Parts: sequence; structure tokens; C-alpha cells
Amino acid sequence: MELKTLVNKLGREMPSFIEGYGEVKPYAGPFATKASGRKYAPLKSSSKPGDLKLLGSLKEALEKVEIKDGMTISFHHHLRNGDYVLNMVVEEIASMGIKDITICSSSLTSAHEPLIDHIKNGVITGLQTSGLRGKIAKEVATNNILGKPVVFRTHGGRARAVEAGEVKIDVAFIAAPSCDPMGNMNGKEGKSAFGAMGYPMVDAEYAEKVVAITDNLMPFPLAKVSIPMTLVDHVVEVESIGDPAKIATGATRVTKNPMDLLIAENAAKVLIASGLVKEGFSFQAGSGGASLAVCKFIREYMEENEIKGSFAAGGVTAYLVELLEAGLFNALLDTQTFDGAAADSFNRNPNHIEMSASMYANPHNKSCSAHQLDMMILSATEIDTEFNLNSMTGSTGMIMGAQGGAPDTAAGAKLTVCVAPTMRKRIPILLDKVTNIVTPGETVDVLVTERGTCVNPLRTDLIEKFTAAGIDLMTIEELKSEVEKLTGVPERVQYEDKVVGIIEYRDGTVTDVIKQVKK
Amino acid sequence: MELKTLVNKLGREMPSFIEGYGEVKPYAGPFATKASGRKYAPLKSSSKPGDLKLLGSLKEALEKVEIKDGMTISFHHHLRNGDYVLNMVVEEIASMGIKDITICSSSLTSAHEPLIDHIKNGVITGLQTSGLRGKIAKEVATNNILGKPVVFRTHGGRARAVEAGEVKIDVAFIAAPSCDPMGNMNGKEGKSAFGAMGYPMVDAEYAEKVVAITDNLMPFPLAKVSIPMTLVDHVVEVESIGDPAKIATGATRVTKNPMDLLIAENAAKVLIASGLVKEGFSFQAGSGGASLAVCKFIREYMEENEIKGSFAAGGVTAYLVELLEAGLFNALLDTQTFDGAAADSFNRNPNHIEMSASMYANPHNKSCSAHQLDMMILSATEIDTEFNLNSMTGSTGMIMGAQGGAPDTAAGAKLTVCVAPTMRKRIPILLDKVTNIVTPGETVDVLVTERGTCVNPLRTDLIEKFTAAGIDLMTIEELKSEVEKLTGVPERVQYEDKVVGIIEYRDGTVTDVIKQVKK
Repeated sequence: MELKTLVNKLGREMPSFIEGYGEVKPYAGPFATKASGRKYAPLKSSSKPGDLKLLGSLKEALEKVEIKDGMTISFHHHLRNGDYVLNMVVEEIASMGIKDITICSSSLTSAHEPLIDHIKNGVITGLQTSGLRGKIAKEVATNNILGKPVVFRTHGGRARAVEAGEVKIDVAFIAAPSCDPMGNMNGKEGKSAFGAMGYPMVDAEYAEKVVAITDNLMPFPLAKVSIPMTLVDHVVEVESIGDPAKIATGATRVTKNPMDLLIAENAAKVLIASGLVKEGFSFQAGSGGASLAVCKFIREYMEENEIKGSFAAGGVTAYLVELLEAGLFNALLDTQTFDGAAADSFNRNPNHIEMSASMYANPHNKSCSAHQLDMMILSATEIDTEFNLNSMTGSTGMIMGAQGGAPDTAAGAKLTVCVAPTMRKRIPILLDKVTNIVTPGETVDVLVTERGTCVNPLRTDLIEKFTAAGIDLMTIEELKSEVEKLTGVPERVQYEDKVVGIIEYRDGTVTDVIKQVKK
Repeated sequence: MELKTLVNKLGREMPSFIEGYGEVKPYAGPFATKASGRKYAPLKSSSKPGDLKLLGSLKEALEKVEIKDGMTISFHHHLRNGDYVLNMVVEEIASMGIKDITICSSSLTSAHEPLIDHIKNGVITGLQTSGLRGKIAKEVATNNILGKPVVFRTHGGRARAVEAGEVKIDVAFIAAPSCDPMGNMNGKEGKSAFGAMGYPMVDAEYAEKVVAITDNLMPFPLAKVSIPMTLVDHVVEVESIGDPAKIATGATRVTKNPMDLLIAENAAKVLIASGLVKEGFSFQAGSGGASLAVCKFIREYMEENEIKGSFAAGGVTAYLVELLEAGLFNALLDTQTFDGAAADSFNRNPNHIEMSASMYANPHNKSCSAHQLDMMILSATEIDTEFNLNSMTGSTGMIMGAQGGAPDTAAGAKLTVCVAPTMRKRIPILLDKVTNIVTPGETVDVLVTERGTCVNPLRTDLIEKFTAAGIDLMTIEELKSEVEKLTGVPERVQYEDKVVGIIEYRDGTVTDVIKQVKK
């Protein structure tokens, strides 16, 4: 095969074929690449009366699903830093002498650092995830321990890839806080309740085999069913699937940091000036102090003006639950619950609605809620003068973040606002070119910082509205120059040629590649 | 193609190939025919922000889905005799000049008699349904107006056929008592609420196009979602989707007829003597006075002995709701709700659980609730000395019934009891051979009548238990002789050679064929 170099619509260079990944389809615009063909069709099954699914051990489940070298297995990260399931499955696979396994997880956290040894030993040879941080990320980015690129997908992109059969999941392992002996399960009840089960809802439909792992076996039939028994092959009971106390990692309370509050107040002014904060509006704000602070200011405006929103969405935090319970929104749409208070709300409030990752953000089904958003607030590690956002790699070139739902919701929302400080530890976040593109600039409308607000020149409508509202605007180039006077222009990281990570856009094209950092 | 005559395991003769149906796979036993290969894979879609699904008229929806000659369209019969949707769609299709349409409905009722003219005009050329009664049935059975056989499927068999792609649904039309503009819908809220949405839950997943028809457009996002927007192409608002007052047709109260009460009391004795009525047991009883009367006697036994059951299932009636609310069962599993009181329970009681037709009774997924049943009570129009049941054709050979979930649950339950009077209008129900087999005798364990109780000789375990419990048993041949002394042996109906109906078993094999009645 002749290797060519492609340049995608964002100006990023990448090989036309990457060993361990395959042919590269270059990013061509947020809605340029349409779905074609048919969904993936998993194998049919047969059942008969008396069939039992409850097995005595995880090992027995692995034998029953005929785990073998070369398979792809899937996990979800709703238990985040408290997840026990991925490690327990990989440990058992390793002890059976199985090699060459690809892990397709909705994300990976610091809880999964034991993977490093399994990668070095050849048990795990492929990683597909939304993000990567800490020691695993360092080993991948600088030592290339995997020997082939990690595939990074957005939450919507992962659902799409599974439905399309671009990832063929041989066995899905699902951490189930409540499960009955036939495999009906939910994430909302039990000692390890984490809330919505958005990611494995997709895996269960398309995986060839599905194993539920539970620490709360309930009598048949479970009443609240997020994944039905029709899709589940085996059930394994274990002592504990995780520690739900470790789910909440980011800030779940509004920041008290004066700079974050200033940015948030400026962002709220922008949202209000857009005219979108009106009866029946919808929005998404991630966790993290600054995002939540935006909610606080918007909340005040809603209360003063007696505005009631339609829905708030995304990873759901206690603060969004407060807004729901204060009657400021009719509903929460939840694919992943970020803390205990939100998990509790999800269990008791019928207007706190579960959605699969496909319903959340897959661009290749018949509707996703990301496309229903009026506004979306997100952050970034870097932004460049074309408004491209990086949330995956740091200024050192190290992998230290995730795609999450950012590219999905940025493409979907009518107004996407990036809130960020202009510098972190004297390192500017504004660059000519971001280290890696995660969210394409053509889907990002506004940057709000502590030193000024910049509007993407594509959005002349917003420039007019904000100017009319008396908001001082500057161009992103002006802001960059001003910041560089204080910080200087940072040196660029040096890279090897080897691609260690592929940033896939939600539609399966490639936004960018991450190269190995030169030591 | 050489036409051969097959004889299936039940001794029924049928052609190896039937024009308008295809190759015949003969019934080989309740679990002899396993699934193979992959599920059907519907087309992928693409969506983008700003897409609107709400259309101005049904005609616009038909144009958008590109309805054309030769297509297969699907419907569901939750509104039963009160359904308006099927007729309004077919009327519109006819007015557009479209021909050669196959209707795949979960069932057809007297509400659908306008189909007769559309069949005669060539608009409708194929029917697939669970049952057929009244004028349509008469036109099919005696005049063969369709010119090819109606395919009769069980509720589980229909779900299986759709998932397997044996029926390829081009467009599914779904009557939605509540629907938001993006197509999230449920059957439990609104003026036309009918309850569980078990049948179209399957159609929506596998149809190429899905049109929701609603008389209750709700704001986005609908909180209680039975079918999500990810599967829906278009939404059409109409004045009324039906008259829910016409849903309840069979008896929903316990009979006062002394003979029915006698049969029910005898059946309850049999169930109790089986030892299955114990803590955590499950059962299904259809609607109809005698079935409900069995529940009444079982209820008394449960209360006396402080027994609490696990679940009751099937089409759910007000009487089953009473049992749930009296704390006698933990849950109801519901695929089709039979009356207003049950629809109300479904809307407010989280232990009244919705299940798709696949989760109810499809033998080719990873579990169905039919296979979890301890006992099942059903009725029949005829029974023969091998315990084969007919619930499809009458003694005149006329089509006048349905398969429903009977073959599914009879195969699934540990104990299947047929309750029936020995004669109806002086015509005996006991025969050497039933007119048509719907539920194979090897899945029927006991016949309880007003004149005696007969156990299938295959169940020597039951014969021992019932004898030990002091229940008088007779052989089915003895009972038949006794009845024939009163009624005489009825003359057999005369048939043409033409096959007008195919009775498909739940696994896609053919249980029996229905031939055109000689005039």
C-alpha cells in the first residue's frame, strides 16, 4: 500500500493509512460525512425454559463466552475512579493466558492503571476510549507501550462506531448496580448505584455476548430496567463492582475563585445577549467550577425574568438537579451521572431522564439530544486563532484529557461558548495552532476569558448582537497578542513520527493524530 | 420447483412451497428449530441540528418515506376495536394510487373491515397478523379475496420474524398516545392512552422508516419514553388515533356462569396440586371470564396460605392489577394492556412493567418472560386426543380467532392448562384431529372441563401428583367418548385445495395450513 499524507479540512496532516488503525478518513466538516449502509447486525440467540444465566464466577463467564486471543471487549466508566470491574475482568483474562485483547471503554480513569502491566505483557494490545490521563497516558504518549495508536472517540462517536460495526464488540462487560438473575439491570439502585447507564445501553445491543457483573442481585423481574434481559447472556455476582464515592472527581459546587467567577459572569452576559436564554431553552454545561458558575448567573437571570427552560443535559451534576428541583427546567437528560446527589435524583425523579449514548450524541441515528441544544458551555486546554479547541493534550504534548461529549454538543448546539483563563501557570492557552484539535473551530462560536471575549468571525450574527448589547469584543488575534506580551510565545513540543493516538471525530473521520513525544 | 408434500411433527400435511409465502419449514418440536445467523440490520440514518420531524399531514409523511408499490408496512393493535390509525393510513395510501402493499400488523380487529375493499381493489395484497375475525376473516376463508395466504404469527413469533428480517418492514406506523416533536413516545399518557407499547417497540428498531401518529403532541423531551426519538423519522399530529373505550372487549370481570366457575375451580385444584403455587411463583391467565375465575380461586389459596407470587404476565387486565395492588404479586409484566384500569395502573405503578413483544415471547433472543412462567391458563375452540389446541378456526372451518401468545407461553410455562367446556352449542370441542393446530399438544399439559380433567400422558409426573391429591382423572379418549354420546360425532368441513392461511409457529416453522372452505 502506498502511504500518502492527507491534509484534512482543519489543515492537519496525517498518513492515509495507519498501522493498527487502518485507512484514515479525513475530517471534512461537522455534517459533511453522512451515514451510509446498514447498522451492524449481532448474532441471533436462542433461549428455552430453564436456562440459567447466573454463573459461579467471572472465570466461568469468560469460559462460556469463549474468550480468546484477538477479541475486542467493552466496558463503561460510570464508576469512574471507583470502578473495579475492568481490572477484575482483565486480571482474570490475563490469568487464563489470553493475549492480544482490545479494550473499547467509554473512557479510562486512574483506577485503570493496572492496565500498564497488561499492555507490557501483551494481554492488552488495543485501547479505544474517550480519554486517557495519568500514568497510562504518559506510558502511551512517551513510551508508546501499546505499539499502535489509541483510538479516541467522542461519546456520540463511540455509539456511532458500535452501531456501525466499525468496532465489533465480542464481549461487553457491564457493571450493574442492580441486576436480576436473567440480566435485567439498572444503574440507579443498590450500594454501588451510579445513575444513568448511557454507554452500555449501546454495547448491549450490538455486542455478540453480554456479561452483567453485579454486587446487588435482585429478584426477577427487576422493575426499573435500563438494559433488558433479551440482550444479556450471563450474570456474575461479585462482592463489589466499585466505590461510588469515587465517582465525583471534578468540582460539583460553584467556584469561589474570583477569576473563574469573572469568566462565568462574562459568559452569562454573552449567553443572555444571544437572545437564546428564553422560555423553553435548553443547555448543557459540564462539571467544573467555572461551568457551574455560569449556571449560577443564568439561574439568577431566569428567576428575575421568570424564564423556564426545557432541558439541561449531559453528564448530570448536583447543581443541575438543583435547577430541576427549583422548577427552572422541565427535565434533565442524562447519559452519565456525575455525583451521588444526581444519582439519587435519577432514581426518584421521573423528569430526570436516562438516555443512551446514541440518544445523547450519535450523529448517525434519527435524532440525538445534542442536536436539540440551544447552548453549550465547555472548557479547553488550548484554543487557536481558528477557534479549534484542544482538550486532549497539554502544552507538553502529553495526553491528559478526553474528547467526552464536547465535539458532539459543540456541533449540535446553536451557541457554543468556550470558557477558559488566558493562561495556566504562565503558559498561554491561545496559540496559532493548538497541539491537537479535538473540537473543530467551525463548531465553536465564542471564547470568554478574564481578559476579553472573542467571537468566531463566522458568526457575524453574534458579533452584531453582542455589540448591540454593549459587550466589548476583541479579535482572538488581539487577545493572543495581549497575552503573549505577558507570557512570551511558548516553545513547541518536539515529536517523533510515530502516531500514538487518533482523535476520531463523531462521524468516524479523523480530526487529528497525536504523535509520540520526543524524550 | 418441484412441489412436494411435507408432513410435520404434528402429522399435518402441507406443500413444501406455497405461492405468496415461499418455502415451508415444517414444525419439528417446540425448541427443535434454533436461531442461526445474524439479526436484521436496518439502514443507518443521519441527523443534524434544526431537523424537524413534525409534518403537516399523513400524506406528507407517506411522501417523505417514499411509499411505493410492493412495500410492507406495519401496525399494532393496542387500540383493538377502537383503532383509527390503520384505516387512516391505508385510506391515504389508496388515494395516492399505491398498490400491492403488505400489512404486517400485530393483529387485526373488526375495526379494520375497510380493508376488505382495499384488498379487492389491489391496494392491499398481503396480510400478516396474529388473528382474524368477522367479515375480513370470512372473505379470506371462503372467498380467498387475498389470492394468497394470510400469515398468522404468534406475538413472540412476530417479534422474532421482524428481528430476523423474515419480515422486512419498510415503514412502521405507530399510534402514539403521547409523542414529542422529535418522536419520543409512550402509550400511557393522553386521551387515547392504551398502556404498554410492546409490539411497535420491536417494529421501531427494525423498520427502515418509522412514522409516529399522535393525538397528543407533548413538549420535548417527553419524560416517559417507550420508543425513543433515535428510531423515529416523522411525527404526524391527528385529531384522534382511536377510541380507547373500545379496547376492552373480552370479559374483564370474573364470570358468574356456574359451568365456567366449576371449570375454574377444577383448574385451580389442578394448579395447586401441581405444587407450583408457592412463594415466588409466576403465572399468566388470559382475559375472559373462566381464566379470571381461575385467578379468583388461586387468589383465595394464596391469601389463606400467605403466598406471594413473583409476577403475572401477558395481556394485563384490571383483575391482575387487583392482585398486584393486593400485594399478591410483586410485579406485572405487560406487553399489551387490556382495559382502562390496567392502563391507569401501568402509568402510575412502577411495578407494572412494560416489555417489548420480544422480551415477552421471542424464542430467539437471550431471554423472554414466557420462558420464566411457572403456569399458564388458556382456552381453545377445539382440542384433540394428542392435546393439540385450535384457537384459530371454528368447527365450520371459518377463521375466527388468533394465535396471540398462546403457543409462546404454552411452550414456556412449566405447566400449561387448557380450560374449556366440553361442548359449545351442542358441538363437541374434543376431536380426533383439531381443524387446525395452533398450540402443539406436546406443550399442553392438562385439559380441565366441566365433565373431567385429562392429563397429557407425556406428563407422568403430573398424573402421579394429581392422583395423590385425590383429583379424579380420565383419559382424553374417555372424555371424548362420553361427550360424543351426547353430541354425536360432528361432520368434517369440506375444503378446497387452496391454502388461505399459514399458521406459523413461534420459531418460524409451520404448525399448520388453513385451506379455503368449500361453499
